[in-house]
Parts: sequence; structure tokens; C-alpha cells
Amino acid sequence: MKLRFTIVGFGSVGQGVAEVLERKKDELEKMGFDFEVVGIADSSSSFIDENGVNLVEAIKRKRETGTVGKEEITAIEMIKEIPHDIMIEVTPTNVESGEPGLSHILTAFENGRHVVTSNKGPLALHFRKLVSLAKEKGLHFRYEACVGGAMPVINLTKELLAGNEIKGIVGIFNGTCNYILTRMASEQLPYEHVLSEAQELGIAEMDPSYDVEGIDTALKLTILANTIFDLNISFKDVNRKGITEINPEALILAQEHGYTIKLVGYVLKNGDKIDIGVSPMLVPLGHPLSVGGTLNAAAIYTDLASEITITGKGAGSLETASAILSDLISIARSLRVEK
Amino acid sequence: MKLRFTIVGFGSVGQGVAEVLERKKDELEKMGFDFEVVGIADSSSSFIDENGVNLVEAIKRKRETGTVGKEEITAIEMIKEIPHDIMIEVTPTNVESGEPGLSHILTAFENGRHVVTSNKGPLALHFRKLVSLAKEKGLHFRYEACVGGAMPVINLTKELLAGNEIKGIVGIFNGTCNYILTRMASEQLPYEHVLSEAQELGIAEMDPSYDVEGIDTALKLTILANTIFDLNISFKDVNRKGITEINPEALILAQEHGYTIKLVGYVLKNGDKIDIGVSPMLVPLGHPLSVGGTLNAAAIYTDLASEITITGKGAGSLETASAILSDLISIARSLRVEK
Repeated sequence: MKLRFTIVGFGSVGQGVAEVLERKKDELEKMGFDFEVVGIADSSSSFIDENGVNLVEAIKRKRETGTVGKEEITAIEMIKEIPHDIMIEVTPTNVESGEPGLSHILTAFENGRHVVTSNKGPLALHFRKLVSLAKEKGLHFRYEACVGGAMPVINLTKELLAGNEIKGIVGIFNGTCNYILTRMASEQLPYEHVLSEAQELGIAEMDPSYDVEGIDTALKLTILANTIFDLNISFKDVNRKGITEINPEALILAQEHGYTIKLVGYVLKNGDKIDIGVSPMLVPLGHPLSVGGTLNAAAIYTDLASEITITGKGAGSLETASAILSDLISIARSLRVEK
Repeated sequence: MKLRFTIVGFGSVGQGVAEVLERKKDELEKMGFDFEVVGIADSSSSFIDENGVNLVEAIKRKRETGTVGKEEITAIEMIKEIPHDIMIEVTPTNVESGEPGLSHILTAFENGRHVVTSNKGPLALHFRKLVSLAKEKGLHFRYEACVGGAMPVINLTKELLAGNEIKGIVGIFNGTCNYILTRMASEQLPYEHVLSEAQELGIAEMDPSYDVEGIDTALKLTILANTIFDLNISFKDVNRKGITEINPEALILAQEHGYTIKLVGYVLKNGDKIDIGVSPMLVPLGHPLSVGGTLNAAAIYTDLASEITITGKGAGSLETASAILSDLISIARSLRVEK
């Protein structure tokens, strides 16, 4: 069975997905995983080829002209009208409305398309609505790439730790904050200095508030908490404190006592109560969460397996594409079985 | 479909499995995972009940009398004659011959039983023979518990990182060595002192050579390397150096330069060449492998997901039972699909 994909959003993640699908095509076919990308849409154009879009040329065109195609069909029309099996939604996260990703995903489900996404907005705002609609329509909905980039924390918890009761997850979900705190600790430099440096290196945005105020961490934590504990939290309900008030003296003091400071997202089940929040916290040196640089890490607390921690790069177009690819393969395997 | 299990070996791991199956029975049934343990064998006795062994009483009997049953049927006879679907092999590891586990597993395959095991010996000595026989007979063979206890490194690499090319794995696979090195570094104490302390705490055996000379690490690494890279290495072919010659001065010097020393097992693919070995190595502080205490950790190097590290407790009867349970659930899911 040949699966037909569309890619909606063709920025760095969308191009990363196209690059990986192109690079791995032969290998994936050998694994029995046969596919074709039949359409790509960006915010102002689209390119359709029901016999398979030439991905190399699509990436080249996008890089040279800024748009992927010319055809007069919008992303929503493409999702509705072009026959395909899986819609890959990789438009940028919008934390106010979740749009345009929210409409893309809802339209896909209404039209019988499975969805794989890296877009945090829709899931951090309207989790239950999306998950319920997918279920009602009998469609697959996977979003590993939303949380921690290449780090497969959702599938690890849901699949590999099956049989375990999950008591909580505590993690570092933002590479920019981790980079800033790691540099502040190792070089004993003030926050503003390291932030400028990170901005010059492209690790922090010119408006860093999304990262340093803990919004990004709260989005990921919300998606994780809703998934693992079957909740319907909006990220706006999550208490959060960022890293802007941390000074090098605090980091030095922590270090002298065998600790480091990290921006931590936590969700802990306490009987029927759920504690959830984002805050700078002391982490003992040598603890699996005391990772440096731009790494992400998540410690999963369970009844049998005790504490399992996974660490990986939280960002990067290939890393995100890896998570999307693993979701695509997982859906392909299930569909093969369901037929 | 009700699955019938036998448990072969009823020491701490076997009892842990029985305890977990008992504790989780109702919950697993709700997940559609219905089972019965129809026989348990230890080295000198067995207990059979085709309607389901009472696991609480079996554990109690073993703890009070030292044997699980009285019936005049050996483990091999039970595997052959008692109808069941999955044989859980949890006898102790024997690094010379792999016995009795090797015969148990071969007999199970010859008689059409799927196998889940935590027994490293057979797999580290006769990997290809076992895997080929399982394949030839169309049987499932899972052994996540062999490597790193609760840490699901095999299934993470094979399943969640599907689509990635694996370039190598570098890890800390022995909790005893990690405990000794961590204490030596933090307390600046000599090897012999910390070893005695670990022996008093039950973290190290009275004959510590299996751990401190790197044998246990080599066994786990061999199984991992054979699985990931489709090799047929015996652990006897793995170069290894243990931790007995490390002194606190080396650890202090490393620490002054931002490193710590860990006993590391590595397998790296270099074109067609495979580099494999066990040796003490410098690990940068803040690196995901710089975990302390009795923790295990494995860093998986890939082409897309970059470096993913998983950390967890490498030993413990519930932790090992967690890995076995996850393998059992995985087989149950596949069988449901295959029917």
C-alpha cells in the first residue's frame, strides 16, 4: 500500500521533513514503507502533484523564491480536495489562537486524513477537542515532535513503559534557557550578557520572551500532561516563572552545595490532584536532569521502572523531522495491520 | 484470548515478575491483556496449575521453604509438556556455558513457545543461534531486561528511533561500578575502601570480579551490539578493562578539568568496521552520561535524532520485572494483531 502525504507549512521543519523523506526513501521502501508526497503548502502558495512532488526541487524553489509553488489552492483546500492519507502539519506555533494549525488539523480530521504534527499551539489550547475528533473519526493523531524535538518522551512513556503507572514527569524542555543557565554557571556571567551572546549565536530569538519566560516550556508540559494523564489543561492555566531573575551568584552558591539551577517543567500526580508548573529549580549535579548546553531532558517517575530519564536535542530541523518520521512509520505500521 | 505463561527461575527476578503480574492483573485485563501463569519452575522443583498458579502463595512458599513446589517435573519437562504461549526465562546468568538458560530457551522454541528473558548468558554467547531459531519457528523473542534493567534501550533504539541510522551506542551498563566511581570521586576515597563499603551495602558481591572487571558490561554490550548491528559477537571477543586500577587522584584530576571517570561500554560503526570495547573513560561533567550513583545510562548516536540518552536503574527486581512486563505486553499486542 502506498501512503500519500501532504506537508502543510514549509519553513525549516517542513523542509527538514521533505529532506529526510527524500534521503530515506529507498531505505524506507525496503522496510515496506512506501509513500509519496502529493502536495506541499506554505502560507501563500501550494504545489500539487498526485504522482509525487519532486522534493529536491520543492526545497530548492522555496529557498530561491520564498514560496513552494504558484497554484491557486490554499492549504485548507489542499487538505480537503487532494486525496491523501496523512497530513503533516508543521506551521509555526501560535500561542494565542492556535491558528492556522488548528483549522488545518480539524479540516484534516473532517476529511478523513490522519495527522502528524510538530505544532504545539493547537494541542496546548484545544487538546481534548482535537484528540476526541480524531478518535471519533477513527484516525491516527501523533505529535511526538511537539515535545522535546528528537527526544521521544511521549512514545517512551505510552509505549515502552506500558504496564507502569506514571506518577509524574519532570523535565527541561527548553534548550535556549538551558544554554543560558549552563553558560551563566560555567562562566559566572550575568543573564543579560549570556542572553546577548545566545542571540548572536541564533540560540535565542531577538524577542526572547517566549523562551525565557517559560511559555515554550509550559506549552510542551501541557501537551505531555494532557497526553499522559488524560487531562484537558490549557497552557494558560499553568503557573510559570522564567529565568530572567536568576543571577550568577545564585548559580555559584548552588554549585558550591553540589547543585545547579535549571528551568524545570513538572507535572506530578498526587492522588486525584495534579501539580503542574514551570519554575527554576535546584537539580543535584550528577542527576540525569543536570545536563548542560541546549539539551532537553525528561525524568519519568513510575511505580515499577522507578525513574527513567531521556535526554536529547530539543530543537533542530532534522531532529524534529526524526520525531515526525517515527510517527509516520508508526502510523504506517498500524495501517498495515488494520487492513 | 488468554495467554498462558510459565516462569522458569524463581529467584528475585522471577518473584518480582510474579509479584508484578499479580499486582497488575486487573489493570492489564482492562487493557485487553488477559493471562494466566500455568507453571513455575526453580532449580529443584516446579509447581503446575493449568487453571492458573496462585502467585501470592507461590512466592510465600518459595520464601518459606526455599522451593516453589514439589512436583516431579523439571523445568525442561514443564517447557515441553505443559501447554503455554510464553516462557519467561529468568534463571541466573552463566557466562561460561549459558546454561541452564540456553537449554530452556532452545527447548521453548522447539516446542512453539515465545520467549521473554532477562538471562544474559545465552544471548551473549549464542546470539545468532537463538535469534535464528526464533525466526525460523515464527516465534517472538524479547530480552529488554538483559540490558540496563528498567532502561528500555533496545526497544527505544529499534522502535522509537525507527528510520534513524544508528551510528553507535556508548553507555554505563553496570550500577556497581558506577556507584564505586561516584563515591571515590565525591569522597576522595581509595577503590578498596569504597568496594568494601559497597559490599556491606549489598551493592557489590563478595566476589566483585564479575562487575569490577567489566564482564557484566561486556555481556550487555554484546547483546546490544548484536541486536542493533545484526552481528554475532560473543562477549569473549570484547576487549575489556575494569575499574580496579583507578585511584582517587585520577578522579580528582579529571574533576579539576571538568570531567569524571566512568566505566564505559561502547560500540561504534565506522563504515564496515565495528569498534567495541569496555574501558574506563573520561566523561564531561554535564554530559548526559555523567550520571552518578548506581544509575545506568546509554547514549545512542543517530543520523537524524543526533544523540539520545536514556538513564535508569540498571538493577532491582521490580525494575527488571518492568522490562519483562513491557516485553510481554508487546508480544500480546502483536499476537492480537497476528490472529
